[in-house]
Amino acid sequence: MQDFTRLILPDVRELLAQGDHEEVARELERLHPADIADLLSHLDPEEGAALFMALSPKDRAEVFEHLDENVQVSLVERVDRGPMVEVIEALSSDDRADLVQALPEETKEKILPLMPQADRNEVRRLLSYPEDSAGALMSTEFAAIPPDLTVREALDFLRRVGPSRETIYYIYVLDEDNRLVGVLSLKDLVLAHPDDKVQDIMEKDVIAVRVDDDQEDVARAVEKYDFLAIPVVDGLGRMVGIVTQDDVMDVLKEEATEDAQKMAAVEPLETSYIRSGFFELVRKRGTWLVLLFFGELLTSETLAAYESTWSSLAVLVALIPLINSSGGNTGGQSSVLVIRSLALGEITTRDWWRVVLREMGQGLVLGLILGLVGVGRVLLWGDAGNVPELQLALAVGLSLLTVVTLGALLGSTIPMIFKRLGMDPAVMSNPSLSCTMDILGMLTYFNVVKLVMGL
Amino acid sequence: MQDFTRLILPDVRELLAQGDHEEVARELERLHPADIADLLSHLDPEEGAALFMALSPKDRAEVFEHLDENVQVSLVERVDRGPMVEVIEALSSDDRADLVQALPEETKEKILPLMPQADRNEVRRLLSYPEDSAGALMSTEFAAIPPDLTVREALDFLRRVGPSRETIYYIYVLDEDNRLVGVLSLKDLVLAHPDDKVQDIMEKDVIAVRVDDDQEDVARAVEKYDFLAIPVVDGLGRMVGIVTQDDVMDVLKEEATEDAQKMAAVEPLETSYIRSGFFELVRKRGTWLVLLFFGELLTSETLAAYESTWSSLAVLVALIPLINSSGGNTGGQSSVLVIRSLALGEITTRDWWRVVLREMGQGLVLGLILGLVGVGRVLLWGDAGNVPELQLALAVGLSLLTVVTLGALLGSTIPMIFKRLGMDPAVMSNPSLSCTMDILGMLTYFNVVKLVMGL
Repeated sequence: MQDFTRLILPDVRELLAQGDHEEVARELERLHPADIADLLSHLDPEEGAALFMALSPKDRAEVFEHLDENVQVSLVERVDRGPMVEVIEALSSDDRADLVQALPEETKEKILPLMPQADRNEVRRLLSYPEDSAGALMSTEFAAIPPDLTVREALDFLRRVGPSRETIYYIYVLDEDNRLVGVLSLKDLVLAHPDDKVQDIMEKDVIAVRVDDDQEDVARAVEKYDFLAIPVVDGLGRMVGIVTQDDVMDVLKEEATEDAQKMAAVEPLETSYIRSGFFELVRKRGTWLVLLFFGELLTSETLAAYESTWSSLAVLVALIPLINSSGGNTGGQSSVLVIRSLALGEITTRDWWRVVLREMGQGLVLGLILGLVGVGRVLLWGDAGNVPELQLALAVGLSLLTVVTLGALLGSTIPMIFKRLGMDPAVMSNPSLSCTMDILGMLTYFNVVKLVMGL
Repeated sequence: MQDFTRLILPDVRELLAQGDHEEVARELERLHPADIADLLSHLDPEEGAALFMALSPKDRAEVFEHLDENVQVSLVERVDRGPMVEVIEALSSDDRADLVQALPEETKEKILPLMPQADRNEVRRLLSYPEDSAGALMSTEFAAIPPDLTVREALDFLRRVGPSRETIYYIYVLDEDNRLVGVLSLKDLVLAHPDDKVQDIMEKDVIAVRVDDDQEDVARAVEKYDFLAIPVVDGLGRMVGIVTQDDVMDVLKEEATEDAQKMAAVEPLETSYIRSGFFELVRKRGTWLVLLFFGELLTSETLAAYESTWSSLAVLVALIPLINSSGGNTGGQSSVLVIRSLALGEITTRDWWRVVLREMGQGLVLGLILGLVGVGRVLLWGDAGNVPELQLALAVGLSLLTVVTLGALLGSTIPMIFKRLGMDPAVMSNPSLSCTMDILGMLTYFNVVKLVMGL
């Protein structure tokens, strides 16, 4: 929340309590709709509804589209149906479909019949596209013209339809079958001669995405080509919608958050952390924690299996966390580097060998460094008592070298294997990798110790 | 790399080897500049330079701006200075400044004198802004008009200057002192009556950022208001540049990648993973790994200090990884949830108590779950032999409950403290948190064991 919205919050609250709606409207007059939305989100649901009704119908629509989905739903449930349907009708088609999907069943049944048949059909169609596809992300309010208009006619047309379109900065040229045959920017139109024909100045090699493309691919295309919006076509090349840059920003943020959560072994949340239900959070965290717990039971078993090795030399036990954390930390570094590079499209699974060789090298060098630090630590141990220092140092150094190299290899290859199999590379979270490395670390450590020290 | 660029790559290579530049140009004719840039990035430096020179001067400029910085630098070093200066002049001011900054000193000295004095001054000015500030991100090619023009005059003006502006979709209205007094969209202009005065139809409450604002705040403002671009003003309210939505997308991606790297204890890379130097990577990973290693030495010391406790009961040792991993995993979950929420602006440090109470609750419930699983595991241990099972189960359960609660508390509060102190919350990486939790875990575990089991 911004400081100036925070400052006027108490005033607004008091005016609402007094029922002085005119004064509320005056107070908000010069605020941007996004700031009014911000303010509204910080009010109680009933206050929020009162504030919303104090706005002019035009402002209501503009404020509404800046609200989070759960605040939108709360308003729909509290505000009179008449004005609310007007607001919903003013939303862009993608926002409208998202809202309808988020409404509880009974509210939906009250609102839907009040919407025009055409809009209801469109909502149904948009909701039929798979989640995370271009179709689910797109808006259907784009500006389209036939190829045989002149620039003057095209501008006249835009003046008529402009206010109802999501963007008129790109104008799409469709043939009589609605197939996408060209694109123009509003800049092109404004800069062109009024008598030029659209088909002579349009760009004919139009870059589009398919309606069933994944939203990450759509985001990557918009970014790559620096588009303000990208057209969406169906299997027959007919244009069905556009995805705009601000939708893409939302996708990028959402995907980054989901990846971060997955990498830390949290099943991705549906909504923001602070709005997630307490027990939803417990479930999304607990499931993974319990799975990881069972994984670590295997580390326990491994430790137990080597009891005869470590029980004879107490210092071996004290070194366990060093070995385990080094393998896990290195693996975690490798996996985050590879997962982000895959997500940004910097590498693909075809770069497999380059990545594996590089990580093998990284693992060996980092393992050598940590191994030497480990050797130094053992040799400096003044209180080693009856411990065969040189042998122990050698065993620790070799174990660290091996475990760190293994960590780098596993951390980098597992995400690439997952990606290759069509799975999400971030699913192999850093905690699961740590757990795997704990087991491998213990196996390595005790076998090296047995070999080198003859225990 | 896209499949169709991959398909024509061998052809292009062969034509370049034969020196048939006309045929190369024909082959690339229908490709989008971003795709030609993609292709060029996959060629050897010398081939890339040859391909670049085979393009028309106009295409060169368009392709160049889609290239990664290191490919740009490699081209500047290989292509003749005359055509190269033309390309550099065609770049937007922010891209030009970034490029000049990236050039090696001697190349810079060759190129700079060939640029017009005004451009050199501008580059110097842009480079003087702190990294990650609005000033370092902005472009200075915006469309500005005085308030007393008519709509017709404004459109005529845009037709003249349009081609050289980064965007003409927003037109900024400046008074005689260059102070920002209003804004119009091209859509407003196109939809307005030609005889309307700009000052009558412009939006007077202009939202702008300051030149020294942090790039994350700029990104958040652009997102919040759904702007295509945001104006940047200096301390006196004079407009000095714009930041466009595609710059903001780059910021979002960059910040997400940096956060992910920090959270996995990798010092953020300057460039992509695959292009980073081998020893740069070793340094950025090794520093943290060694620091963490020294941290884990404290865990070793803790373990060593409790030798008299665990040496009497081997099963206590086997349970160490369970305790340590549970604390670290829970802490990692909490910290990623809080760090992402802070980054997205969903919570601020003012939500401190809400977050702490929620995480305390999460920790207690998750700790109870893991504690019960731990108790179950100990009780089901068939081979416990001389172990006092009930006491051990109680000790393990209590330790898990404590450690998991501590993990949730530390994982959530430390990022908030860092944020409050003006530091980056992601600096407390998950590995450092795991390390802290290992030490606290061991202290908790052995003290609980001593208390409950009287060892």
